[in-house]
Amino acid sequence: MPRALDVASSPVRDLLALTSRPEVISFAGGLPAPELFDLDGLRIAYDKALQDRSVLQYAPTEGNSTLRGLICERLTGRGLPTSDVLVTTGSQQALTLVATALLEPGAVVAVEEPTYLAALQCFQMVGARVVPVASDADGLVPGSLREVVATHRPSLLYLVPTFANPTGRTLSATRRAEVADIAAAAGLWVVEDDPYGELRYRGDAVAPLASISDRTIYLGSFSKIGAPGMRLGWLRAPADLLRALVIVKQAADLHTSTVDQAAAAVYLAHNDLDAHVARLCAEYGRRRDAMIGALPATVPPGTTWTDPDGGMFVWLRLPGEVDAAVLVKQALEHDVAFVPGASFFATTPDHATLRMSFTSNTSDGIAEGMARLAKVLR
Amino acid sequence: MPRALDVASSPVRDLLALTSRPEVISFAGGLPAPELFDLDGLRIAYDKALQDRSVLQYAPTEGNSTLRGLICERLTGRGLPTSDVLVTTGSQQALTLVATALLEPGAVVAVEEPTYLAALQCFQMVGARVVPVASDADGLVPGSLREVVATHRPSLLYLVPTFANPTGRTLSATRRAEVADIAAAAGLWVVEDDPYGELRYRGDAVAPLASISDRTIYLGSFSKIGAPGMRLGWLRAPADLLRALVIVKQAADLHTSTVDQAAAAVYLAHNDLDAHVARLCAEYGRRRDAMIGALPATVPPGTTWTDPDGGMFVWLRLPGEVDAAVLVKQALEHDVAFVPGASFFATTPDHATLRMSFTSNTSDGIAEGMARLAKVLR
Repeated sequence: MPRALDVASSPVRDLLALTSRPEVISFAGGLPAPELFDLDGLRIAYDKALQDRSVLQYAPTEGNSTLRGLICERLTGRGLPTSDVLVTTGSQQALTLVATALLEPGAVVAVEEPTYLAALQCFQMVGARVVPVASDADGLVPGSLREVVATHRPSLLYLVPTFANPTGRTLSATRRAEVADIAAAAGLWVVEDDPYGELRYRGDAVAPLASISDRTIYLGSFSKIGAPGMRLGWLRAPADLLRALVIVKQAADLHTSTVDQAAAAVYLAHNDLDAHVARLCAEYGRRRDAMIGALPATVPPGTTWTDPDGGMFVWLRLPGEVDAAVLVKQALEHDVAFVPGASFFATTPDHATLRMSFTSNTSDGIAEGMARLAKVLR
Repeated sequence: MPRALDVASSPVRDLLALTSRPEVISFAGGLPAPELFDLDGLRIAYDKALQDRSVLQYAPTEGNSTLRGLICERLTGRGLPTSDVLVTTGSQQALTLVATALLEPGAVVAVEEPTYLAALQCFQMVGARVVPVASDADGLVPGSLREVVATHRPSLLYLVPTFANPTGRTLSATRRAEVADIAAAAGLWVVEDDPYGELRYRGDAVAPLASISDRTIYLGSFSKIGAPGMRLGWLRAPADLLRALVIVKQAADLHTSTVDQAAAAVYLAHNDLDAHVARLCAEYGRRRDAMIGALPATVPPGTTWTDPDGGMFVWLRLPGEVDAAVLVKQALEHDVAFVPGASFFATTPDHATLRMSFTSNTSDGIAEGMARLAKVLR
């Protein structure tokens, strides 16, 4: 039986099916708030893009050249000088392309633990062995990475350094420099997955790892700042590797939808995405505050949680011998949901952890959901 | 170096870059005619789809349920009873998903030779060994398949049974029954890649292999009957395998663009796709006739060619010791292009072969292109 068939379906996506009853207040999915999508702006962009017949035709694998230029401009403006990117079908595809291009069966991948579970699936799918690196409030612990490098000789490190999924934590600038040094010394590829970086609600931006390390493959996405349904991501990598990834993408889907790409290019050229992101940040920041503010009255004494500066997630650890997978069933009976944390661990799960997303409910919805959750947790 | 990096870029896609000079009449690409796209119908469909905010959100991996229902209805109406499909990002993605799910490194894949070269890339990418099966005017030769099965024990057979790429040939009904028998006896999976089946210009439809063999994975596509830029394909497979493929797709790109899917669902519900396909067939049939009619005056005596009932391609073999890769350079000097046939062979290429597409030029353009080509070939 090929190894791909041993990989289980994502428990988060399976859980999402259960939370789709309209009466459930769900903190489970990592979903952007649909009421904040710029539906009118995007509809106009699609209509404008579809005035050109060529957007319906086959196109180069690399992606729409106008869109690539606009993405490079945007990254450069945010402190990451960029001359070329590969457009991907969401940044999930970028992960699979990197795994296919760089990992042989049996290869070792180091991941910050806990981490984005669909990344774990990608690595398992190509037969790689995943080794966890410890993290704390400042993100991945460089000392732990050094030990993992010495013991397991990984070929790749995967992390979400800014507002991580599932913890919401951000790797400090000092640690970024250390990670860059370790990667350079060990010849390690670093995948910097950055879907949330623009969603900052307080504090100053930390420079991307890719801006200080040329061993870094940087993944960006339109999903959290634009709309995930369009499935648009981008990948920035050293030129040689980028060329190889184009060939892998050619086999994967020839190219990303030219309609979605052209619409995104029109949208970026004719709209102020920064202003839209500022609106998202203002509202998501309020929602973050609503959830963090409600937590002390929701959870039992002894619970710890992260206090994210941005992104979508708060990560909790409950006291005592509890299993969040059992608690979520009770929560669903009270019409509220979260994600048990166990699936975010590469090896040994901590069953007392859970992830809560604050982006897809209003502050009022969060207050009501937290009140329901208190009945289960306290 | 991981095996994926050993796979070369598609020579066809590289050649397409050279043929993009506007003065070149290209018979190289397998491109549908852009002037026949239903641009207005599709623009209206996107606009209607984008009145619903939910088309911008994350969505289930399986695909838009309305679209899946409409695809099942269409397949059933065409003689292939279908209760479920997986929507894929073009049928190219379906190929990669199948390769990932069913092939271990070292697995053997049998392919009709010559065959679609991006399929060869997919199989090479997962480390499979490709073994050719002979074909003649009636498609793949069952006796050759029997030998390959006995000698190499392949786990999968890949073929384009109707209007094949690159030959335009169609596997006869009798041979389809034989292939189904061989697959059943050998426990062989059959991938029936059918992007061209609806583009028939004469004669009667031959029932899909999938309708007589439950070992068949059937791949369909919107690219040749709708628009390739939308990257919409579908995969029909036995229920267990379909479930496994959903998990592989989850890691590959989470799901196909919800905007493109919703637009296609609206389009199919509000437009007569059969009438559109009939218009395509009428025009493509004329173009086919124009190319076939011009061939005797274009090629040297002793040349043989296929006489396709549908699809997009004519396949030629020139007499003597010629190399089509050298000839195409001379052809480009005369502002005309085709694809040398060598890249469509899994193992030993026949350098005297070439593929010509008749769909993307008008009959007048074909006449002019063939006149230019005659200067090179005769």
